[in-house]
Amino acid sequence: MDMITSIHNESIVETRKLKQKKHREASGLFLAEGLRLCEVAAAVDAVEQAYYHEALADTDRGAALLRELSGRTRRFVKVSARVMQAMAETEAPQGILCVCKCRQVSLKDFQPDKEGLVLLADGIQDPGNLGAMLRILWAGEGRGLICLRGTTDPFGGKCVRASMGGIFHVPVINGVDWPGVARWAIVNGYEVIAAESGAGRDYRRINWPKKTLLCIGNEAQGLITIPAAEVKERVYIPVKEGAESLNAAVAAGILVFEANR
Amino acid sequence: MDMITSIHNESIVETRKLKQKKHREASGLFLAEGLRLCEVAAAVDAVEQAYYHEALADTDRGAALLRELSGRTRRFVKVSARVMQAMAETEAPQGILCVCKCRQVSLKDFQPDKEGLVLLADGIQDPGNLGAMLRILWAGEGRGLICLRGTTDPFGGKCVRASMGGIFHVPVINGVDWPGVARWAIVNGYEVIAAESGAGRDYRRINWPKKTLLCIGNEAQGLITIPAAEVKERVYIPVKEGAESLNAAVAAGILVFEANR
Repeated sequence: MDMITSIHNESIVETRKLKQKKHREASGLFLAEGLRLCEVAAAVDAVEQAYYHEALADTDRGAALLRELSGRTRRFVKVSARVMQAMAETEAPQGILCVCKCRQVSLKDFQPDKEGLVLLADGIQDPGNLGAMLRILWAGEGRGLICLRGTTDPFGGKCVRASMGGIFHVPVINGVDWPGVARWAIVNGYEVIAAESGAGRDYRRINWPKKTLLCIGNEAQGLITIPAAEVKERVYIPVKEGAESLNAAVAAGILVFEANR
Repeated sequence: MDMITSIHNESIVETRKLKQKKHREASGLFLAEGLRLCEVAAAVDAVEQAYYHEALADTDRGAALLRELSGRTRRFVKVSARVMQAMAETEAPQGILCVCKCRQVSLKDFQPDKEGLVLLADGIQDPGNLGAMLRILWAGEGRGLICLRGTTDPFGGKCVRASMGGIFHVPVINGVDWPGVARWAIVNGYEVIAAESGAGRDYRRINWPKKTLLCIGNEAQGLITIPAAEVKERVYIPVKEGAESLNAAVAAGILVFEANR
């Protein structure tokens, strides 16, 4: 099979553009790199194109992934080590990079078939935090992630990697505004719970609704766009006096698993 | 006051060496940069030397920190923007960098004056995770962090920044081996609880001991050096079938706050 050795090859150039949000939005595609992520992507049939380095076949796991991808991928392309390095965002790429479909859901179509918790991110800036939230929602059976406009792009490389595959399993509603979400919550029977630092009620003392819309705000400023009057209950995790509040992803983990009790 | 404008200045060269673990270990010093970290460092009187850029004085908060540091710092030095950039590890330094004392505790001297939880890190590799654990322990009133040999250095820059000041408030016992910790736990009445993925008992179903030594393992491999026979109880956080287990810091947050209930 032919191997692409030039980073100026048209499909390589086009694929690398997906590192930028505007190209992801225009195409509805995003990048997943590394064995674990590409395995998850293949398992849910989200892969459109796969680029690999031949050394991937040297391990059983890599060879199995290549077989899996070769059968079900529109483009399946061998590239040189230099091209792989140029396409990848990690320093030591594992030799596999997939172009995947963004499976975004519109608010209108977002109708979880089970009760449970939906997380809303209001201005989260760190893609590592947002990705950790996707990982938490996958593990903790959250029903979806709503990202208000102003939140970092959930399909960005760092977020995708931090999600450890959660991006392929958790329904994502991206770039929406609060008023529409507020209407969605009313129509679908979700109660709005806002995580705050030091305000409201101790998270262990509330009755978590069967349908919870849990809102987590910006790392430094907290909730940015959600009016206080539209929040049913504010909850906090008590921390030692004088200490910094918890990291947004850690707080999300504690609250999601508390709601699951 | 004189300003250092050369990155070849001897004290600048010496300070920059503290980015490397061997120099931190040899000197017992480490670096903290940014307003929040340096405020915490000053408040606990951990600062040996402070380097600042004059623009820091332009804000009330920066000016207050400069006043605080100038009174209680052995060396208090103005540097040019270029020197600050070279000293800092962040891309957009806030204009303040402090050389701080590592307040390590030896196992022998580690005698928490209250019951509670001590966290043990066995091979944590990501400094962001280890720093998040320090932040969790500070917020959740953990009594200390024990880092087994092979764990990333808690005094490294990325860990210090992720701790958000926890490094100055949580006693740290660094670079020790398991047999010594096992003896310490017996002598001091701590029970060894190991976090696992999918093995042992559901974390909500155990009676958390008043003195808990909670062991968290490596991100990929779990516990590396602690023999199973020396663990009193293994706990796991239930996750959805097929999903990736939780990130080590998120798991630590859930378990530390569960033990606090």
